[in-house]
Amino acid sequence: MQRVRLAVDCMGGDHGPSITLPACQAFLANHPHAELLLVGQSEALAAARDWPRCRVVAASEVVSMDDPVEVALRRKKDSSMRVAISQLKADDQGQTAADACVSAGNTGALMALARYLLKTMDGIDRPAIAASLPNQKGGFTTVLDLGANVDCGPEHLLQFAVMGSALVTAVTENPTPSVGLLNVGEEMIKGSEVIKRTGELLRAADAAGQIRFHGNVEGNDIFKGTTDIVVCDGFVGNVLLKAAEGLGSMISTQLKGEFGASWSTKLRGLVAWPVLQRFRARVDHRRYNGAALLGLRGLVFKSHGSADAFAFERALERAHESARHDLLDGVHDRVAAAMGSLAAPHPSIPA
Amino acid sequence: MQRVRLAVDCMGGDHGPSITLPACQAFLANHPHAELLLVGQSEALAAARDWPRCRVVAASEVVSMDDPVEVALRRKKDSSMRVAISQLKADDQGQTAADACVSAGNTGALMALARYLLKTMDGIDRPAIAASLPNQKGGFTTVLDLGANVDCGPEHLLQFAVMGSALVTAVTENPTPSVGLLNVGEEMIKGSEVIKRTGELLRAADAAGQIRFHGNVEGNDIFKGTTDIVVCDGFVGNVLLKAAEGLGSMISTQLKGEFGASWSTKLRGLVAWPVLQRFRARVDHRRYNGAALLGLRGLVFKSHGSADAFAFERALERAHESARHDLLDGVHDRVAAAMGSLAAPHPSIPA
Repeated sequence: MQRVRLAVDCMGGDHGPSITLPACQAFLANHPHAELLLVGQSEALAAARDWPRCRVVAASEVVSMDDPVEVALRRKKDSSMRVAISQLKADDQGQTAADACVSAGNTGALMALARYLLKTMDGIDRPAIAASLPNQKGGFTTVLDLGANVDCGPEHLLQFAVMGSALVTAVTENPTPSVGLLNVGEEMIKGSEVIKRTGELLRAADAAGQIRFHGNVEGNDIFKGTTDIVVCDGFVGNVLLKAAEGLGSMISTQLKGEFGASWSTKLRGLVAWPVLQRFRARVDHRRYNGAALLGLRGLVFKSHGSADAFAFERALERAHESARHDLLDGVHDRVAAAMGSLAAPHPSIPA
Repeated sequence: MQRVRLAVDCMGGDHGPSITLPACQAFLANHPHAELLLVGQSEALAAARDWPRCRVVAASEVVSMDDPVEVALRRKKDSSMRVAISQLKADDQGQTAADACVSAGNTGALMALARYLLKTMDGIDRPAIAASLPNQKGGFTTVLDLGANVDCGPEHLLQFAVMGSALVTAVTENPTPSVGLLNVGEEMIKGSEVIKRTGELLRAADAAGQIRFHGNVEGNDIFKGTTDIVVCDGFVGNVLLKAAEGLGSMISTQLKGEFGASWSTKLRGLVAWPVLQRFRARVDHRRYNGAALLGLRGLVFKSHGSADAFAFERALERAHESARHDLLDGVHDRVAAAMGSLAAPHPSIPA
């Protein structure tokens, strides 16, 4: 089995090492071929000093959850986030210290640092954030962008479609995953001008064999699993993802509330407990933690800032799986193949 | 008690009279002071001819779910949808045949016909679709726009905030409901240019006492119940609403699936049944059916096209409640009070 090494920003997120270290420990136990570079303040990571397949990489500063991008980029030059991402930079021999990097830190700062340190791939204007959401078919729907780009043009959405296809191919080995373009209901005014022009580009990319374009999809298609990939701009994607988390959490609270209402319902809940536990595990959004930043010359994964150790370990696993399946080469090859159309100038997109 | 009369487009929706008539019958039984005008083809509505507090209003044509707006507007001039909306037009004495209208038909056609026949209120450029979603506090969050306007400028979002406030005030009697502006996570690039400029307008409207502006909110705040009202453009709102329906339906299917997995889980499900039933009723999206088209000179309500009789009856109830609370006057007064700022010219908004 191929040895994969992950660089972990142990200081990021709402909880820092109190969450990331237990997650790393569990991850190492479950992945006997994995290695970790634990990046952060030495004292904070002292507990991990003697762990096997592990090395502490010192970084004296921490990017906080509300640090502006400028602070992360220009002031905190020895931050754990920056040092972790730097492990993905190739040396003169093209070697990197790590195969992928994981951080639960401030998304804006992570994206900006990753872009600055690693650069985007040829043919990609803007990296995108991609996550996999569970669907009714028992599989996953990969949605992007989830918040990196609030104003997107048709070319960007086309790039997301190509990168999302590469991600799904790498992880599922399906060579031709289907792409849906998120739009409003058919019976309504059919989308903005950007969406209409994106549809044209996606159809052209489908005709050229670069992606498999299913057509427009609606919000419910994400959870139906109508397509393998759904592309949308980062504003819509972010709102959607957070709304789904909010609804899931409300439903789970209500279910608990109904079973906790009285002694009689509590007794019934006790009988139903094993089934309810399996149900909770299936809808638990912590299981789907770990979003990929696609389009960079390195594999960066973003964990939810409020992730607990269980959720953070899922993000580590996702990064590990992606590196093991050579996601970086997969995206690179697919983007290169589509370069002709991706690089085509489009008058409506400002540089 | 004030007598309220509703005009019902009995032919609209995926199922037509087979759904709308049973819903009307149940509604009449539960609302002894309500009257209905049942609009549609006489033969199709024959069963209702002798119902009390009811009158059949003949309309020979039907706007189908996939009829383009032009067909509804220019060709089918005797459609049940058009005749139903027409019941809200004032005669020379300012009297209307009905107080509100309900249709499960094609949203695009309904909005276009309502706008053409009733006109928008002074100060309102574009009507919006508003619906109430359940939140974790046990109350409702009113979200608009849900799909009438895919490209919105800051002025439109301000108008939505004013109209949404009037809707919530009319139904809940809270004179100062709070308004949130849907945006992406604080830690990300903080929204598009339109959102930033909308924030300025909403702050000014708050300072002028026209609305109570809470600030930006994220997708999960809708279900947390952070604010009474959430405003967004129709593209985002529509995607959000459909995604929430899709997720709710997936979760409900999975819960059923877990309890149906084996004889042992089925037995446990039998014990948990009464509790699960109460839970299902609480999260059942049919209960929240019935969206208001705000900003028109008449109260028009849109039911989900696939509504069953239970859901369609909820839309009738929502229209009835709103008419009983003089929603039309409420919106009119609030918009009139805010007219100064709403009518202020804004160079960035094309006419």
